[in-house]
Amino acid sequence: MKTYINPERKQWSELAKRPAMETDYLRSTIQNILDGVKKGGDKAIIEFTERFDGVKLDDLEFPKSKWENYTNNLPAELKKAIQTAANNIKSFHQPQLNKPFLVETMPGVKCWRKPVAIEKVGLYIPGGTAPLFSSVLMMAIPAQIAGCKETILCTPPDKNGNVHPAIVYAALITNVDRIFLAGGAQAIAAMAFGTETIPKTDKIYGPGNQFVTTAKQMVSEQGVAIDMPAGPSEVLVLADTSANPDYIAADLLSQAEHGADSQVILSTNDPSLSGKVNTAIENQIAALPRKEVAQKALLNSKIVVFEDFETAIDFSNTYAPEHLIIQANNLEQVAEKINHAGSVFLGPYTPESAGDYASGTNHTLPTNGYARAFSGLSVESFVKYITFQEITREGLENIGDTIEIMAKFEELDAHKNAVSIRRKS
Amino acid sequence: MKTYINPERKQWSELAKRPAMETDYLRSTIQNILDGVKKGGDKAIIEFTERFDGVKLDDLEFPKSKWENYTNNLPAELKKAIQTAANNIKSFHQPQLNKPFLVETMPGVKCWRKPVAIEKVGLYIPGGTAPLFSSVLMMAIPAQIAGCKETILCTPPDKNGNVHPAIVYAALITNVDRIFLAGGAQAIAAMAFGTETIPKTDKIYGPGNQFVTTAKQMVSEQGVAIDMPAGPSEVLVLADTSANPDYIAADLLSQAEHGADSQVILSTNDPSLSGKVNTAIENQIAALPRKEVAQKALLNSKIVVFEDFETAIDFSNTYAPEHLIIQANNLEQVAEKINHAGSVFLGPYTPESAGDYASGTNHTLPTNGYARAFSGLSVESFVKYITFQEITREGLENIGDTIEIMAKFEELDAHKNAVSIRRKS
Repeated sequence: MKTYINPERKQWSELAKRPAMETDYLRSTIQNILDGVKKGGDKAIIEFTERFDGVKLDDLEFPKSKWENYTNNLPAELKKAIQTAANNIKSFHQPQLNKPFLVETMPGVKCWRKPVAIEKVGLYIPGGTAPLFSSVLMMAIPAQIAGCKETILCTPPDKNGNVHPAIVYAALITNVDRIFLAGGAQAIAAMAFGTETIPKTDKIYGPGNQFVTTAKQMVSEQGVAIDMPAGPSEVLVLADTSANPDYIAADLLSQAEHGADSQVILSTNDPSLSGKVNTAIENQIAALPRKEVAQKALLNSKIVVFEDFETAIDFSNTYAPEHLIIQANNLEQVAEKINHAGSVFLGPYTPESAGDYASGTNHTLPTNGYARAFSGLSVESFVKYITFQEITREGLENIGDTIEIMAKFEELDAHKNAVSIRRKS
Repeated sequence: MKTYINPERKQWSELAKRPAMETDYLRSTIQNILDGVKKGGDKAIIEFTERFDGVKLDDLEFPKSKWENYTNNLPAELKKAIQTAANNIKSFHQPQLNKPFLVETMPGVKCWRKPVAIEKVGLYIPGGTAPLFSSVLMMAIPAQIAGCKETILCTPPDKNGNVHPAIVYAALITNVDRIFLAGGAQAIAAMAFGTETIPKTDKIYGPGNQFVTTAKQMVSEQGVAIDMPAGPSEVLVLADTSANPDYIAADLLSQAEHGADSQVILSTNDPSLSGKVNTAIENQIAALPRKEVAQKALLNSKIVVFEDFETAIDFSNTYAPEHLIIQANNLEQVAEKINHAGSVFLGPYTPESAGDYASGTNHTLPTNGYARAFSGLSVESFVKYITFQEITREGLENIGDTIEIMAKFEELDAHKNAVSIRRKS
């Protein structure tokens, strides 16, 4: 990892820049897929699946009646681990469900608000070498707590037309309603527009490659909600002189193995950490099956050394990392100074992988500096709020002048008249 | 208004369709403005303002030191009305501020979440004939409750380079920090990228014409957050046989006067309302200064009559209106059945204009069917959540197997190793 010593503040925005994602060239390809599914429905999905996933499906749905048997041979230790993680995620997400509240803002003017679950939600789980069953938990549990009426899941089939049983198990224990074998932009199109088999949903969630994330952005321009804009995963480790270089190296590598476009940053006030962490990375990386991916990611990555720890914290806030790991003294005071981050991991025994899987926090988090304005996934992501008001005859007398005068000065006479006609009666 | 009697369900999605908004043709014009501001900064804003607003500005900022004097001559009745509305809006938005919470999901595994105000927020207030000071309240008050560090406001100057004193007054009493004289896509560009004078913000809010809303969508694709996708304003009135046709007409007109592209719908089980409401509209519209606008909007508008009130409610949920006015018996039961709406107005004495100005609810609401998945503006729109976790040595023993097993099956060995290396030490 390249080391920068005491960079001036005017260089910070350059240091905090993420590698640019050019996806414009994908848009016409994806538009064709979206249009194809809109017109062709199931038939188009089956064709795209044959073309992109190399398997011809007879049936797009993996029916719920088969789920339980299908997971019978899953190792007991994995089932238990998924169950434990699910319990922790439930415990942490349950308090996120807001209650309705009512305020009588003036005598006779009652206003209230209630959370209403988004009715139909679509979860996307990518394919690839490893089954991302943990993402099923991170999306389906908040959907369940919110009370969504229909939760569907799309995931690409393997070459034999199958889905991994760990994904099915995670879906089973989190009350997902239906699983469909569809991946890529065609799955996003199906959940956005609906087909004969796959229902149209109100909001689409989940990680994916550039095809999937660009397709999500494109359908969001056409009226379907999406969870958040997505970019490659990233971690910033904030470390003072008390930090353990082996743990730092392990955390940086656990982010770097995600993908060649992952970014990992170390922000510190300890100049000796640069050498120590680089050495620890060299020692640890050799044993990793995904070391080539990690090595590529480390090329985008930086160690930034500052004169004091306060400045290292400032730099972290400028970067606004998706994941922020803090190994430092006075953790509580340091945590108070964090203004921009997705999820924060405090102290020597809190690796990022705890939050990725099982501590209880959500692992779907804002990347690419979006943590300045976006939150990670939560129960609120599966809820919308409806406001209500009911005014009595007397209440309208109390508030009537205010409305009429404001409407008059905004030159909206019909707004005024809607009050006057009632007061005159 | 055209009347539809007992339309079949398969026709509903056609009846619920909004007039298409074609904005693609604007994108290249707007892209030039965005690029111009990115490169030219203040100078570009001044040039665009001269071109589009017909005034050459010396100074882009209307300095806070001048605000109070500037509002001295504003009518006392208007100041009082704005103050009353502000108080009600505060009362209803204050309970929306979520508190931090902490859950120990397993012994030694502490997870917590805290709301953090979005640091810099940019509010847009359109120009035009009437000053939309009410929108200042609807955005600046939740920003203030959230605790945003810097709240700026952009609004186009009039031909003399001035801003309406009612906008300044609303900004003054809601602690807006700075007002800039900039409108249109150039104002959105300034708040997205920053200029020498206008600071870059983290999130941009507010209504506007197609240039403004398309510019907001375009900068949102480049990493700046926006409040919500926007379309023309709309109301659905849900009325049974107990409803007052004059009130219905007044409410429909108060929506129709917003713009020729506004849409108003009456959903009812009372066939006689069609004639009565059309007559009442004819009687009331003559006196309206904006009657030509309202007449155009009524061309897009529909009365839909169903055999029973339950079906009329179903149709409302299919339409998912921005504003929903209910005049019916058993209001409480009816309100319980509303699943998709922005804001709901219950009973004969609750006109939409109450919520537009002063009841306390927010008037920035999801249009165009977005109410299926989006909420109106709230304190949450000015907040993001950061999650934290801190695990003890013992906690890591308790949760360690779960993480290691899940990482192993997702084939992410470095994730597993970040736990193992700590447990071995």
